[in-house]
Amino acid sequence: MSIDLTAISITEEVQKTFDGAEDERVKELFTCLVRHLHEFTREVRLTSEEWFKAMDFLERVGKTCTPTRQEFVLLSDILGLSVLVDLIYHPGGGSVTDSTLLGPFYVEGRPTAKNGSDISGEVEGTPMFVNCRVLDSDGNPVVNAKVDTWHSDGEGFYDVQMQDKLHNHLAMRALLTTDAEGRFWYRSVTPLYYPVPTDGPCGEILRAAKRSPMRPEHVHFWLHADGFEPLITMLVRSDDPYLEHDAVFGVRRNLVADFVHHDAGETAPDGTRMNEPFQTVEWTFVLSRAED
Amino acid sequence: MSIDLTAISITEEVQKTFDGAEDERVKELFTCLVRHLHEFTREVRLTSEEWFKAMDFLERVGKTCTPTRQEFVLLSDILGLSVLVDLIYHPGGGSVTDSTLLGPFYVEGRPTAKNGSDISGEVEGTPMFVNCRVLDSDGNPVVNAKVDTWHSDGEGFYDVQMQDKLHNHLAMRALLTTDAEGRFWYRSVTPLYYPVPTDGPCGEILRAAKRSPMRPEHVHFWLHADGFEPLITMLVRSDDPYLEHDAVFGVRRNLVADFVHHDAGETAPDGTRMNEPFQTVEWTFVLSRAED
Repeated sequence: MSIDLTAISITEEVQKTFDGAEDERVKELFTCLVRHLHEFTREVRLTSEEWFKAMDFLERVGKTCTPTRQEFVLLSDILGLSVLVDLIYHPGGGSVTDSTLLGPFYVEGRPTAKNGSDISGEVEGTPMFVNCRVLDSDGNPVVNAKVDTWHSDGEGFYDVQMQDKLHNHLAMRALLTTDAEGRFWYRSVTPLYYPVPTDGPCGEILRAAKRSPMRPEHVHFWLHADGFEPLITMLVRSDDPYLEHDAVFGVRRNLVADFVHHDAGETAPDGTRMNEPFQTVEWTFVLSRAED
Repeated sequence: MSIDLTAISITEEVQKTFDGAEDERVKELFTCLVRHLHEFTREVRLTSEEWFKAMDFLERVGKTCTPTRQEFVLLSDILGLSVLVDLIYHPGGGSVTDSTLLGPFYVEGRPTAKNGSDISGEVEGTPMFVNCRVLDSDGNPVVNAKVDTWHSDGEGFYDVQMQDKLHNHLAMRALLTTDAEGRFWYRSVTPLYYPVPTDGPCGEILRAAKRSPMRPEHVHFWLHADGFEPLITMLVRSDDPYLEHDAVFGVRRNLVADFVHHDAGETAPDGTRMNEPFQTVEWTFVLSRAED
């Protein structure tokens, strides 16, 4: 290693230190990462003061993370990185359902639920009935698919953002299983557009850029089934004011769904005559075979 | 914002969201950062699994940080970023002393000390006498310069790494002030080469790359004086086995110093006849005028 380094030669010196990696992918990833990190730093002539701020910022992002608050995922989301990773492998537009980003509100350890059950927990709001089918690309039902779903309440808050009110239990999220016809269905409350959390470090970036923190109304789904590629996706409300202004770039044309309004007195998909207004969402998800 | 994004078009869509930043530098930094982050991600075709690992890794780096353990600074150090930021603004090789990286062991709130005092705290080791001058580029003494100094013990450990043993006090670090001739001097113990901390997330990178974690023996200095540019630098032992294998790329030819051995019976710079072996280090630091 040279001790006569320059702002140019340093890059190759650092890259060489990854030559000994046994895993070729480790070598490839870090060689490329170092090149882009260094090129960025040289191009903007990053100052010592800016570097200190970046170190402090990243530390605070890490410290903001909890099992229910993924601030690094949010940082990746608002920089378009999460969607990019998805787009590289799932350009979409084909015969199977498009995927999109996971978002920061997925929580492991969510409850399981039976089809038809009300997964809203203790949360009040306009009833929403979700009725979906899961098919393979030949139109055959995918039986016993595991379907994670999660969404916000009618004020745009997820359960993990109101644990005081919910007495530390999860709500508006569940793991369902498709029946013999590939169907899954549940009742919950209607979500709303909402801002991504702006009380942490990521909020500083959004405010500095005068960016909207809003996401259009949507319901998340994560589907797993034996023999199929897992699918992380969401359905986005077609008439939402933020449809084309998503803070995390997650909307894809093929995932825009009608959240249909029904007046009080109409009959819900489960046969209940409703004495209040409600919404229905129907969708057919098509999974890609693992060997495709 | 388009809802027909591709793995190429996403980059410009994200960059556009920074157009509204009032601070032109914020816009410049994020536009360039997004481009390089996205180019990196596309070039290596980052997988979803690798992205998850990266999110988890960065969270753990943040959580490893404490007031005395700067794991993000260490990450920047082992990727050559810290030295690069320094090299861009301080290419060195001129008439003033070269700068180099701060390292992760600088601690705010270090004790002040008088010239000639022993700053080793309760730490035992081979005595080291450091005698330096601080001059401007015309050779005039810089009076009342504030000089932070910090170094490891004879086993390569900093005070903050052995707080149990030291009963929570700092050692081998102090803030000194230059006298009317620009001199500062102190007694301490001789440091040793040492590994950067490998028990945290950064250790995983070093092990994956089979990189040496070692840094050659050195003493840190951070000089401040009215009318001069601050100088963050270090002196590195000339005959150290790791001189050309520094894990954080911090050695610069102009900062290689002789750590001179003296036998028992010789007289120390402070006039003491020593009954044990000791070392001496002498150096002249030259500061750059703030208006230069």
